Amino acid sequence: MMVTDGLIEGIRQGRIPVLARAISLVENGRDGYERLLSALHPLVGRAHRVGITGPPGGGKSTLIERLVQVYRERDITVAVVAVDPTSPFSGGALLGDRIRMDSLTLDPGVYIRSMASRGAHGGLATTTREVCDVLDAFGFERIIIETVGVGQSELAIAGSADTTALVLVPESGDGVQVLKAGVMEIADLYLVNKADRPGADRLVQEVEVMLGIRRGNALRHVGPHHGPATTGSGKREAEDVSEWSPPVLTSVAVSGEGVTELVEAFDAHYEHLEQSGELERLRREGLARHTRDVVDRALSNLVWQEGDGAEILAEKLDDLASGRVSPYKIAHDIVAHLQEAPE
Amino acid sequence: MMVTDGLIEGIRQGRIPVLARAISLVENGRDGYERLLSALHPLVGRAHRVGITGPPGGGKSTLIERLVQVYRERDITVAVVAVDPTSPFSGGALLGDRIRMDSLTLDPGVYIRSMASRGAHGGLATTTREVCDVLDAFGFERIIIETVGVGQSELAIAGSADTTALVLVPESGDGVQVLKAGVMEIADLYLVNKADRPGADRLVQEVEVMLGIRRGNALRHVGPHHGPATTGSGKREAEDVSEWSPPVLTSVAVSGEGVTELVEAFDAHYEHLEQSGELERLRREGLARHTRDVVDRALSNLVWQEGDGAEILAEKLDDLASGRVSPYKIAHDIVAHLQEAPE
Repeated sequence: MMVTDGLIEGIRQGRIPVLARAISLVENGRDGYERLLSALHPLVGRAHRVGITGPPGGGKSTLIERLVQVYRERDITVAVVAVDPTSPFSGGALLGDRIRMDSLTLDPGVYIRSMASRGAHGGLATTTREVCDVLDAFGFERIIIETVGVGQSELAIAGSADTTALVLVPESGDGVQVLKAGVMEIADLYLVNKADRPGADRLVQEVEVMLGIRRGNALRHVGPHHGPATTGSGKREAEDVSEWSPPVLTSVAVSGEGVTELVEAFDAHYEHLEQSGELERLRREGLARHTRDVVDRALSNLVWQEGDGAEILAEKLDDLASGRVSPYKIAHDIVAHLQEAPE
Repeated sequence: MMVTDGLIEGIRQGRIPVLARAISLVENGRDGYERLLSALHPLVGRAHRVGITGPPGGGKSTLIERLVQVYRERDITVAVVAVDPTSPFSGGALLGDRIRMDSLTLDPGVYIRSMASRGAHGGLATTTREVCDVLDAFGFERIIIETVGVGQSELAIAGSADTTALVLVPESGDGVQVLKAGVMEIADLYLVNKADRPGADRLVQEVEVMLGIRRGNALRHVGPHHGPATTGSGKREAEDVSEWSPPVLTSVAVSGEGVTELVEAFDAHYEHLEQSGELERLRREGLARHTRDVVDRALSNLVWQEGDGAEILAEKLDDLASGRVSPYKIAHDIVAHLQEAPE
């Protein structure tokens, strides 16, 4: 109890060492973590959360480094949560080739944290959200969430941000394949990075054509598309905020080209969300989904950690392996046992 | 009841149209699907399940086509379950560019099925396993599971197979990045496909070096490595079956080069699993994990479909959004309510 109280107070006071301890508590699901998150809940919801996703090797980390620099020049505080196991932020644990971005990490207005993608106690998406909630409550104005845009769970994480950007690069069929499979309808912005390479223009066109097809199929857009122009200005016509047409931007992250435009497109999307009422709807949906996840986690803990589930299962393991009893019969018994014994 | 009985009987008789209906029932979680799976459980466990994973664009689908041909030449029946949304097996739903492999699909000894990666009712990994169980009970001797090897859930699916192969291609840093991040410790075999391209030899060496480092770190191997030679013969020294050293093979799937060797390496790995007792251990672990997943799914259904969870949450949504009540308080109330009212 005392520990959690201290953490809550420290986060309200904006103390970085306390933040690190609070995040560890949440990430590892240690005693009192739900009490901490519950106490922080009224403080959550002020940050703009941006999900950045795409295949590995797309230059996402360099891009994020540049984004952070642009935000800091504007005196905006920013936290980065790396869920991408291939990200240098996450650290190539094996070879220890973690890139240390000293210029960023010495700045108290920047906080970088990687998620341990294995062993997240109740699902990586749920835990990532909770870590972002702590950073949000702490007062960071932007939270960038880096994921790899191929897996389902990673897409779910990126999709839970207010704004989601998909980063593609020329000379790689991957991104277009992902798009073709209909996986990335989720993105609010498309960015062709490494745009100084051959094939960049073609990729921009391909993505635009594909988005056009999708728009056509969806039959939602009858007139000309509103939303940011595809030239990367990030500006939109002021009179129509009800529709958002995902823009296709370009950048060369290593030189910083296009990064300011990207920041402006993020801001424009957030403004759209606020003015259209979408932000409130998205946040309510997100809170409802998160509550469901917390319930499912609690029930799972009730059976496997606090209850007799593990014991019942262990007793039946030989019968299970020999084929005498099915997983469904055992599951039925375990659930029935939980309901019989509410204490 | 009647429907499920008919399906069980039809699967025992090896009727393909019944198989298709049974899989749809399981995939969509329709009435009686757990009863069906429970009845089939004694028939499950005869197939060798092979997970094939890797970044998109690695030629996995062509490789699988060739693998199926080699199996069929040997009169071995084979089912393919595509969980990869970028796979032509799964079908680019948007553009309808599904590749139809007529030569394969007219053969009753081959069955190809793609998983709808969205909307899986209780987690994609759980449902994929259940679809494989149906195919196993039906009598297919090999089950190939195709996933994209970047996401956590996709890795979990590939890792649940008896044998897991990671497919990499030259001229793509992706695979090596994934390896570096320590994500792919899971693989039992590494395959450099498109090995006629420049850089293939270097990639083979990189993977071997990386595996060497991991072996060194793990301190498990003191003497020379046993297991298949890295030349792709798939043969191992007969006297040591207790250790498996993942081999690095090469292939050119479009021409069929290296595919026979891959089949032999799969067989060698299975033989290793059987003789070392690993197979039994893995299968017991898999059954225990699956039973836990089935319980978690049942509990979730109990709250959200059969119980009052959705209603309680809907009532509190305004308080949740305004910050007056936290997700954790509502979750606590929902769980308490479930325990109070076991009926």
